[in-house]
Amino acid sequence: MRPMDTPIRVTVWNENFHETSERDGAAMAERYPEGIHGAIAHGLRDRLGDGVVTTTATLDQPEHGLTDEVLASTDVLTWWGHVRHADVDDAVVAKVHEAVLGGMGLLVLHSGHFSKIFKRLMGTSCALAWRSRDDAELVWTVAPGHPIAEGVPHPIRIPQQEMYGEYFDIPEPDELVFVSSFTGGEVFRSGCTFRRGRGRVFYFSPGDQDFGVYHHPDIQRVLANAVRWAAPEQRSGRTAPGLVNMKVPDFTGARLSTEVGA
Amino acid sequence: MRPMDTPIRVTVWNENFHETSERDGAAMAERYPEGIHGAIAHGLRDRLGDGVVTTTATLDQPEHGLTDEVLASTDVLTWWGHVRHADVDDAVVAKVHEAVLGGMGLLVLHSGHFSKIFKRLMGTSCALAWRSRDDAELVWTVAPGHPIAEGVPHPIRIPQQEMYGEYFDIPEPDELVFVSSFTGGEVFRSGCTFRRGRGRVFYFSPGDQDFGVYHHPDIQRVLANAVRWAAPEQRSGRTAPGLVNMKVPDFTGARLSTEVGA
Amino acid sequence: MRPMDTPIRVTVWNENFHETSERDGAAMAERYPEGIHGAIAHGLRDRLGDGVVTTTATLDQPEHGLTDEVLASTDVLTWWGHVRHADVDDAVVAKVHEAVLGGMGLLVLHSGHFSKIFKRLMGTSCALAWRSRDDAELVWTVAPGHPIAEGVPHPIRIPQQEMYGEYFDIPEPDELVFVSSFTGGEVFRSGCTFRRGRGRVFYFSPGDQDFGVYHHPDIQRVLANAVRWAAPEQRSGRTAPGLVNMKVPDFTGARLSTEVGA
Amino acid sequence: MRPMDTPIRVTVWNENFHETSERDGAAMAERYPEGIHGAIAHGLRDRLGDGVVTTTATLDQPEHGLTDEVLASTDVLTWWGHVRHADVDDAVVAKVHEAVLGGMGLLVLHSGHFSKIFKRLMGTSCALAWRSRDDAELVWTVAPGHPIAEGVPHPIRIPQQEMYGEYFDIPEPDELVFVSSFTGGEVFRSGCTFRRGRGRVFYFSPGDQDFGVYHHPDIQRVLANAVRWAAPEQRSGRTAPGLVNMKVPDFTGARLSTEVGA
Repeated sequence: MRPMDTPIRVTVWNENFHETSERDGAAMAERYPEGIHGAIAHGLRDRLGDGVVTTTATLDQPEHGLTDEVLASTDVLTWWGHVRHADVDDAVVAKVHEAVLGGMGLLVLHSGHFSKIFKRLMGTSCALAWRSRDDAELVWTVAPGHPIAEGVPHPIRIPQQEMYGEYFDIPEPDELVFVSSFTGGEVFRSGCTFRRGRGRVFYFSPGDQDFGVYHHPDIQRVLANAVRWAAPEQRSGRTAPGLVNMKVPDFTGARLSTEVGA
Repeated sequence: MRPMDTPIRVTVWNENFHETSERDGAAMAERYPEGIHGAIAHGLRDRLGDGVVTTTATLDQPEHGLTDEVLASTDVLTWWGHVRHADVDDAVVAKVHEAVLGGMGLLVLHSGHFSKIFKRLMGTSCALAWRSRDDAELVWTVAPGHPIAEGVPHPIRIPQQEMYGEYFDIPEPDELVFVSSFTGGEVFRSGCTFRRGRGRVFYFSPGDQDFGVYHHPDIQRVLANAVRWAAPEQRSGRTAPGLVNMKVPDFTGARLSTEVGA
Repeated sequence: MRPMDTPIRVTVWNENFHETSERDGAAMAERYPEGIHGAIAHGLRDRLGDGVVTTTATLDQPEHGLTDEVLASTDVLTWWGHVRHADVDDAVVAKVHEAVLGGMGLLVLHSGHFSKIFKRLMGTSCALAWRSRDDAELVWTVAPGHPIAEGVPHPIRIPQQEMYGEYFDIPEPDELVFVSSFTGGEVFRSGCTFRRGRGRVFYFSPGDQDFGVYHHPDIQRVLANAVRWAAPEQRSGRTAPGLVNMKVPDFTGARLSTEVGA
Repeated sequence: MRPMDTPIRVTVWNENFHETSERDGAAMAERYPEGIHGAIAHGLRDRLGDGVVTTTATLDQPEHGLTDEVLASTDVLTWWGHVRHADVDDAVVAKVHEAVLGGMGLLVLHSGHFSKIFKRLMGTSCALAWRSRDDAELVWTVAPGHPIAEGVPHPIRIPQQEMYGEYFDIPEPDELVFVSSFTGGEVFRSGCTFRRGRGRVFYFSPGDQDFGVYHHPDIQRVLANAVRWAAPEQRSGRTAPGLVNMKVPDFTGARLSTEVGA
């Protein structure tokens, strides 16, 4: 397993649009002075201390801040996007996809459900139902033995939040950890794990640009748990699974091949 | 697959306590004149017509109405119990268990979550949270391609129902088909499939002695769909999986055994 | 569920390369006189009789034979490809993908694991290990209660077959139905189901251009079972899940919305 | 998550029959001088060093060595039994069951598939196919991103081992980590995870009294990984899930209840 004495290297990615837009900039500066990415990174450091090293990356940087070097030295990538999914370069998406299959952890957050990378990993439309009004959200744990649910109240109570509802068009999760309800009566599979290749993916829906959900201590706890869960044991030299031409069978006759000729 | 031209033989089991008790008898007679078992059987015949043959069985009958002959000629058993779980004979439970592993379908309904047969099949406590007040329930489909969800509105709306909430202590379902919400904000995995041995098990929570939920057309539809899903292809001579002593290997050298002497 | 009295409409797709190539044509004409697609279609009709209507489609046809009309009237599509995956038009792949999410069943066969449509639905590399020599394959049932395993011997014995081995880079299947072994000692998850959107997908590996596996009666049985399992209940007007803007909540106060104002 | 600086407390349980029987004692003393339990404990300490503290317990001890105190201070229990399953006291089984639902990890090894505790947790017969001759076993990883597979060769090669084959009558595992093949051509789901209540269960089949498999370095690695995976974050005060009477709803009107009086 992952050596316990080395910190997990997390790259927190944000499209960083609302923060820099004329329409939302002022409200965002008040709600998220360091941007959504800054708030997420801050929460992880608060919870994990020396157990984590965070950096951030945004859409407007060269290669969206996700160069080969960055990906190779990232143990867990978190992804937040909303209105600029289409502007993410397909070549970068392909590299992130390859990195996940090779073992890099990925946390897809809230409106990231419609990101290119999530849709590519899921193979479905990732569509859902939504309403942005005055709902409260309760996040219920349905897998209390899962490491991501450790120390999380049942339910988490979020006073104000955008509603995300079913049907959420994803493959059946490998593990369903959280299910949310909203005051309007909707439900949502809000915390889902998926293994893809050697990588671990966690989708978590609470967290919106219009509400300060990433400052919520329980939400921060979930994200910190998820970072630890998603971090690969292997810290370097990771590669995605590939085609293997197995010329020599393991059994020859009724014996192990290595014994043959011995 | 199951021959399409023979009806599915369903045995509808009910502990039949509320119907016959001094306290509840009068109200039940009004709500369920034929008993809960009668209402369930009626709904199945309404929906499936010639596709089903129903019989009923109750706790007070010899062997609770579940003799070897009955079990051998039952394709799908539905189970409703509430306050008399402890009075179900362990020997009968063992036979039902064996029948399920052999391929008989089983629908466990509402408070049947605490029945001996369900706890035995699940291996967990099957505990849950509950409140019997004035909640409404919405039943959301999270697996729209599943046969049990066919023709079911999204959501099913039940004006009055007992609240069942998480954490529901069951193994992760093979397929999660429905998730419910209640006006109080709780959620519940209300429709779950489990394969055990050769048998298919479906747990469905809506349906209570205090509310006439089994007359609800959408609930009847779910039960009818579930009966068809759970019915085994094999109509007779079913046996549970057993220990097999395989004396002869299939491969000998690098060839199939049957070719060896050829 | 699907009306029992209407046949399932299956479209059998084949890249049809080996059959028409200079190198393989003569051998294929002997092994598969009607092509691989012809053999698959033949086997389905043999097994399902009036329960199925088959048509075939190939790469060289306009739109690869998969026009909007064909897809709209196809209940289950089977896919065989090997060396010409790259020549399949992305626009056709997108339409097939949409049709699957809308409910069309899909059977992906053997080397189809590397087809564009399968990789898109899986979200992984779909890479595997392989060896084309003189292995025999045994196909073991690990889900004896699954409809696809109905009437299938344990194991199926295939005297000669290309080896496909783990690691097979797919998401964890919703249901693992078959696991194969080969004389060389390799294992392979050879029969896997996946629900995607409203559609059901089955991957089945036995079946190769170099061996006459599609004439094998047990393989034909599996494919027939899978067609019946994958066929959607809804025969027309299917649509993929989409984004839903839910303006009106279902609960208002503690009551169902429709009751408000009543 | 589990504090990183406290060792995992493992109790290694063994029925200790072959070691003490007249028939097998001499051979066992040579093969396993400290008993199977001693070998397993030794391997864990070798691999995990300060990360683990091991104790052993055996059938012949009072309460089989599994008193309330022992269970309360055990993070992971490993279970090896073969011919004396029936002699395990039902009261002890009930306590172990309760402890697992409360969060204690459990590793069930080899012939432990037929132990009372495993059958109770699975809810199925746990029957399988077997042959004790001269097979070699290959253990293939089918979930390369799973922590239990970390650092494990693909395949693990075991020169001599009892054959365990399908059909193995267990519920579909939450995660299938390893699949084995044998020279005779059989396959077996040899490494399976199951979450039950708050606890994590891992079944692993390699390991037999007639072969020195627990000295195999790769097998030791798997067991060490599994101990770390199964260890609960919560070290004390664990309780199994129970029935919860939720009198007060979380939502009242469209607001969180706690806001109501505010």
